[in-house]
Amino acid sequence: MRAFLLFVLTLFMGTSALAADRPQDWRDVDPQNLVLMDVRYGTIAIELSPQFAPLQVARFKALVRSGFYDNANFYRVIEGFVAQGGRGGASFPQWPVIKGEFDRPYGSDVPFTPHGSPDLYAPEVGEVNGFPVGRSPKEKRMWILHCPGTLAFARDKGADTAATEFYIVLGEAARQLDRNYTTFGRVIDGMQYVQKLNRGDPDVQNGVIPLVSRRDPIIRVRMASDVLAMQRPRYQVLRTESAAFAAARDARRTPDSPYLVHKPVSALDICTMPIPVRHPAS
Amino acid sequence: MRAFLLFVLTLFMGTSALAADRPQDWRDVDPQNLVLMDVRYGTIAIELSPQFAPLQVARFKALVRSGFYDNANFYRVIEGFVAQGGRGGASFPQWPVIKGEFDRPYGSDVPFTPHGSPDLYAPEVGEVNGFPVGRSPKEKRMWILHCPGTLAFARDKGADTAATEFYIVLGEAARQLDRNYTTFGRVIDGMQYVQKLNRGDPDVQNGVIPLVSRRDPIIRVRMASDVLAMQRPRYQVLRTESAAFAAARDARRTPDSPYLVHKPVSALDICTMPIPVRHPAS
Repeated sequence: MRAFLLFVLTLFMGTSALAADRPQDWRDVDPQNLVLMDVRYGTIAIELSPQFAPLQVARFKALVRSGFYDNANFYRVIEGFVAQGGRGGASFPQWPVIKGEFDRPYGSDVPFTPHGSPDLYAPEVGEVNGFPVGRSPKEKRMWILHCPGTLAFARDKGADTAATEFYIVLGEAARQLDRNYTTFGRVIDGMQYVQKLNRGDPDVQNGVIPLVSRRDPIIRVRMASDVLAMQRPRYQVLRTESAAFAAARDARRTPDSPYLVHKPVSALDICTMPIPVRHPAS
Repeated sequence: MRAFLLFVLTLFMGTSALAADRPQDWRDVDPQNLVLMDVRYGTIAIELSPQFAPLQVARFKALVRSGFYDNANFYRVIEGFVAQGGRGGASFPQWPVIKGEFDRPYGSDVPFTPHGSPDLYAPEVGEVNGFPVGRSPKEKRMWILHCPGTLAFARDKGADTAATEFYIVLGEAARQLDRNYTTFGRVIDGMQYVQKLNRGDPDVQNGVIPLVSRRDPIIRVRMASDVLAMQRPRYQVLRTESAAFAAARDARRTPDSPYLVHKPVSALDICTMPIPVRHPAS
């Protein structure tokens, strides 16, 4: 028996490999900001960030609670870019367009932990309350980055035209959308189910899947706070301002493993730094 | 009817949107270097690069032709990182370890087209014959990057210990493996099927999927050259040294769309630049 399985073990340590985290390093995800989206592959859990986009979060919650997304589908899915869902193509007078919230000012409610590696697109990057964030010290503005797993509202032409349609980022090509679409949440569990969604062809109708039967249905979406307490999943996110997170990030930036034969450059794309999430028994 | 579907159209132009490409800008993929891997979701087409890793390419082809991978599986699959496949855990005396080919010297057979944006991990990046490549002008060495879709050999501890197990890159976290594992091919079609592969839990057995029935089988792998000509799929890749490719890359680096309300930074992560592939009728 050979150990073919064990290549570069330390690159993907998960929460079980965290060194010296303390109970107070973890925060409970507020069920009021936790979305549970059922697709046929499993349940996608998304944490919303009212700190970055209160209007969009309020709208998304209202849509969820109204049942708007139940039996809708992912109709435009482009590999390496985004999976767009909702009821595209139609207009709903009861859900008028809302103001875009593409970035926000600095504030004491959003403590920024510098990531410590450069970034191709933003002047500065770091983590804020469990979200990957960019900021501009010159403008004193900050925004949630379009990393894989980020939730955002789609829109029409014009900044303030989002209404009901959303997307989840699949790959880093979406970074070019930063500050152009309102990012307001992040998949904290079930990203593997998002990746299973049927893709469209980017050369045909901009990636829209023409055959409705080929689109993955959104079976049901609920706010965790509306789920009976005994059935409600519980999540905790490692505080990104904790020493435990800093240690995990630095270990990842400078990998050390007996499997390495060439020393990697000490750098880390912020979108590839997992923000640890755990799922304690309820 | 509203045009909710059409957000940032130009970011994902595909081959149909290429401006001014000429027939000679496309090269046929050599069936001798084209792998067809059937999984239950569809067929993954992979182009091999003997220019970067002749030993690994020869080994991989020999394994394919021997039927080694037929009815094997993807046993270690980590979201955002890699999907590792083969017959992990066992040793096969008939397939002894081979020498690693982590990088190669500069050469006239590998014309380098500078990408034109900085990179977090490599001193220089660019495209070579349809592959995303890093290079070190100081060392005069170059290597295929661990971008999503890249094919590489796994190995044991020690540089020269690859034998049979391979992986396909799922996300950019794998960039930290550059120059540590031999990269020798690239998925040119069917990446959406790779993304559908069942994931393991990185916290449990390093992402190995314990239950064999939960692992996605590798149904069959063939070299396209071994497929009857009339059944053989034909692929063409846009020459990355062509003006048509440069124009597509530059348009993507500096997006221009009526959907943009904030001018994106003119930068482009090389792993997010699609290298256009087309599939003309055979």
